[in-house]
Amino acid sequence: MKETKSEEGLTVKKDENFSDWFSEVIEKAEIVDLRLGIKGFIVIRPWGAQIIENMFEHLENELQRKGHKPTFMPSVIPKENLTKESEHIKGFTPEVFWLKGIGENQELALRPTSETVYTPMFKLWVRSWRDLPLKLYQRAHVFRLDTKATRPLIRGREFIWIECHDAFESKEDAEKQVQEDIDTTEKVMHQIYGIPFFPMKRPEWDKFAGAEYTVGSDCFMPDGKLIQQPSTHLMGQKFSKAFSAKFKNRNEKEEYLWTTAYGPAVSRILASVIATHGDDSGLIIPFSISPVQTVIVPIFTAKNKNEILKKAEEIKNILEKKDIKSYVDADPEKRPGEKYHVWELKGVPFRIELGEKEIKENEITLFTRDTKKKDKMKISELGEIKKLGEEFDKRLREKADKFSGGRIVDCNDRKNIKKIIESGKMARVNFCSTEKEGVKCAEIVETEMGGDVRGTLANKNEIPKGNCVICGKTASKVVYIGKSY
Amino acid sequence: MKETKSEEGLTVKKDENFSDWFSEVIEKAEIVDLRLGIKGFIVIRPWGAQIIENMFEHLENELQRKGHKPTFMPSVIPKENLTKESEHIKGFTPEVFWLKGIGENQELALRPTSETVYTPMFKLWVRSWRDLPLKLYQRAHVFRLDTKATRPLIRGREFIWIECHDAFESKEDAEKQVQEDIDTTEKVMHQIYGIPFFPMKRPEWDKFAGAEYTVGSDCFMPDGKLIQQPSTHLMGQKFSKAFSAKFKNRNEKEEYLWTTAYGPAVSRILASVIATHGDDSGLIIPFSISPVQTVIVPIFTAKNKNEILKKAEEIKNILEKKDIKSYVDADPEKRPGEKYHVWELKGVPFRIELGEKEIKENEITLFTRDTKKKDKMKISELGEIKKLGEEFDKRLREKADKFSGGRIVDCNDRKNIKKIIESGKMARVNFCSTEKEGVKCAEIVETEMGGDVRGTLANKNEIPKGNCVICGKTASKVVYIGKSY
Repeated sequence: MKETKSEEGLTVKKDENFSDWFSEVIEKAEIVDLRLGIKGFIVIRPWGAQIIENMFEHLENELQRKGHKPTFMPSVIPKENLTKESEHIKGFTPEVFWLKGIGENQELALRPTSETVYTPMFKLWVRSWRDLPLKLYQRAHVFRLDTKATRPLIRGREFIWIECHDAFESKEDAEKQVQEDIDTTEKVMHQIYGIPFFPMKRPEWDKFAGAEYTVGSDCFMPDGKLIQQPSTHLMGQKFSKAFSAKFKNRNEKEEYLWTTAYGPAVSRILASVIATHGDDSGLIIPFSISPVQTVIVPIFTAKNKNEILKKAEEIKNILEKKDIKSYVDADPEKRPGEKYHVWELKGVPFRIELGEKEIKENEITLFTRDTKKKDKMKISELGEIKKLGEEFDKRLREKADKFSGGRIVDCNDRKNIKKIIESGKMARVNFCSTEKEGVKCAEIVETEMGGDVRGTLANKNEIPKGNCVICGKTASKVVYIGKSY
Repeated sequence: MKETKSEEGLTVKKDENFSDWFSEVIEKAEIVDLRLGIKGFIVIRPWGAQIIENMFEHLENELQRKGHKPTFMPSVIPKENLTKESEHIKGFTPEVFWLKGIGENQELALRPTSETVYTPMFKLWVRSWRDLPLKLYQRAHVFRLDTKATRPLIRGREFIWIECHDAFESKEDAEKQVQEDIDTTEKVMHQIYGIPFFPMKRPEWDKFAGAEYTVGSDCFMPDGKLIQQPSTHLMGQKFSKAFSAKFKNRNEKEEYLWTTAYGPAVSRILASVIATHGDDSGLIIPFSISPVQTVIVPIFTAKNKNEILKKAEEIKNILEKKDIKSYVDADPEKRPGEKYHVWELKGVPFRIELGEKEIKENEITLFTRDTKKKDKMKISELGEIKKLGEEFDKRLREKADKFSGGRIVDCNDRKNIKKIIESGKMARVNFCSTEKEGVKCAEIVETEMGGDVRGTLANKNEIPKGNCVICGKTASKVVYIGKSY
């Protein structure tokens, strides 16, 4: 495949204009291509698709380890299903793509999410508490007719996600699942992809349409705005009541199922990976998900070409045996410097430079993408790259943690909120209520300050001391205010 | 998860009524569920989804080994793309789902196949012969508004496939790709899933809409009818001309790309796996793709329960270390006999029965699904199951080969064709032409005999000796006639 030419390097610095940097890097590093020209629908190129596949693998492994099983549900949903849960359809109707009539007696929508097909199946598959918990997922494309400005990977009309739909015998079990989902986000998105997040229990007015409550994962982008990553919803008995999905409980009584849903949008998480770790030379892909973990660039002349290419292949074989994904860039049309440039742009964690001098010494030169340091390494020690890869990922994660952790500012004066959030931070404030009584204050936050009340921390019980920063009434919650995508 | 109850065993014998047997087994073995009630769209349950995932893994590995890289293209295609290649749109228009207008200036269809989005991207990605070959694929759901009777897995309005779209610098290279695709079908569908096939170069009147020619893989179903499995198409320059997708060739001249497409529909291949290998007790899943390769059924009383369950877990751990997927069915609510029944229905290759007697002897009883034989095995020899699994798959494949291979009957009298194909075989006949001159004879085959001219063998050059079995004119081809799904 054609690689990006060296003259096509980045022209924008990440710190100076993050938005333009992002738009430029995803195209030049060959993650996406927008030139097909369908609003909100993008082409994901091999480099992006391979990263996404690797992200899926980690996520599916963790979900399966926790007892989830794969399914494939139809990509279309009949209108009668979609409209059964009244809040759900109110929330989603404006966002639904409908199919044109096909002369049959059923109106079909492209799925925006799949509660309304999983729940009727739960009804058929679950008879008693012995069949529970039932934890299912699907890897799926979903479609939402977003009319706002679309942005590749961040906000599209089609996106690639995993949706988990789980059924339980009690509210307690369902709430445990919400916590387990947060743990999955932690184990995979944070620990493996290196993206820190704040699990925010959303205010009543910002929950998923049809849920009892929603916990969204808020992640800082480099510009200090927040992007919502995986969210998990306690549906309670809302969908099971709409679909009459009952089971026999331990007391032999009929009861409605308790359900949850969890939806990590892998294509969107990729946006955070790109945004968080990248630099002015391009992407920096975590070792754990990079399609090529070590690229080998042989440096040869016409005279020693065969010898050096042979050695490069040997090194590749050694690495593959150690389970390190590697690639020899033997293209005779490009100079080594051009190759360095391309693979730095693509974010490959390690580069091995291999010339005559290295071969004589039985060593290689190892370039590390994030630190940009070069070190010598004995060929006999190549297996070390596995460990260096773990350290690589740890550095990325810790750097992101530091960036994210330092952006919470306590604030008890409403005059300061705007300044805090405009400087790319989140204001932690006392707030009257996250139930509907709080809507008025939230509107003031939005209209006067340009911010959103993101919610309360879902993994920590924070008790407010004092009054609502907006209305001055007794506060019932500590909430976080930020700017969002 | 709830397993099928033992009273829900199969009521139909495969030999007596294959069609009813198939419908029954896919629901009772929990492969699919049709009760969502959307014509042509099905729910694939965990057991089916896990088999499909395993099938994907083998297929993608083989494609990647041969240089294909993954992509994700939009699920929708603009009308202006879909209508660019005139034969293509003529063939596909009646089968397209259109989205309702969204107040924007673009009519969108759900993709029936993706030539019309890959080709315009080839145009952008390929500049010269140095960028070739370009071999891409995507794992995708596709949608065809089939108005014929739909059948789960076999003929649906949505199906799950891989589509490969490749671009080359010469017709010769493209034709080599067609042969490579046939080899992929052989390596994966035949060697791994155990499904033999005849690679048939379709007659002119039965090729893919927009192709120069099509090679379809014909597989016998147990009722002797043929089902088309992966097909590979030589598009030639038809799509590249429609989309002006040119490149600079080795003589520095502009030339249109040569393209091919290959489409294994994994959900449909699963239908062949089920149909070919299953028996009156249910499914028989090849060891290589079974979600559980060895199920362990502990046989315990209240008294020895703990000891035996502990041993069962130990055995599971030994198997997992040997990379054998296993599962302990410890359900206390079911008798061992019920469990045997369920796992035979689901087609798990091996069952380990483990009771007090076995533990004393440091051995297990091993039941083999296809032969239904029980053997004793020392616990120290459990690793052997890996090798037994290979033999298991070989037996399934050889049985299928025998069934399929014995169904070709030479025929030079048109009076016998109907009888041959109605007995579930293919007639090999001399035929005037597979170009448009042959259409009339093909129509006679269809209307008078109820058969289809499937085409000529694509991997063998068979020279006819004699005249067309239908019209009596000089034959130019040896073709195969059969009944099809």
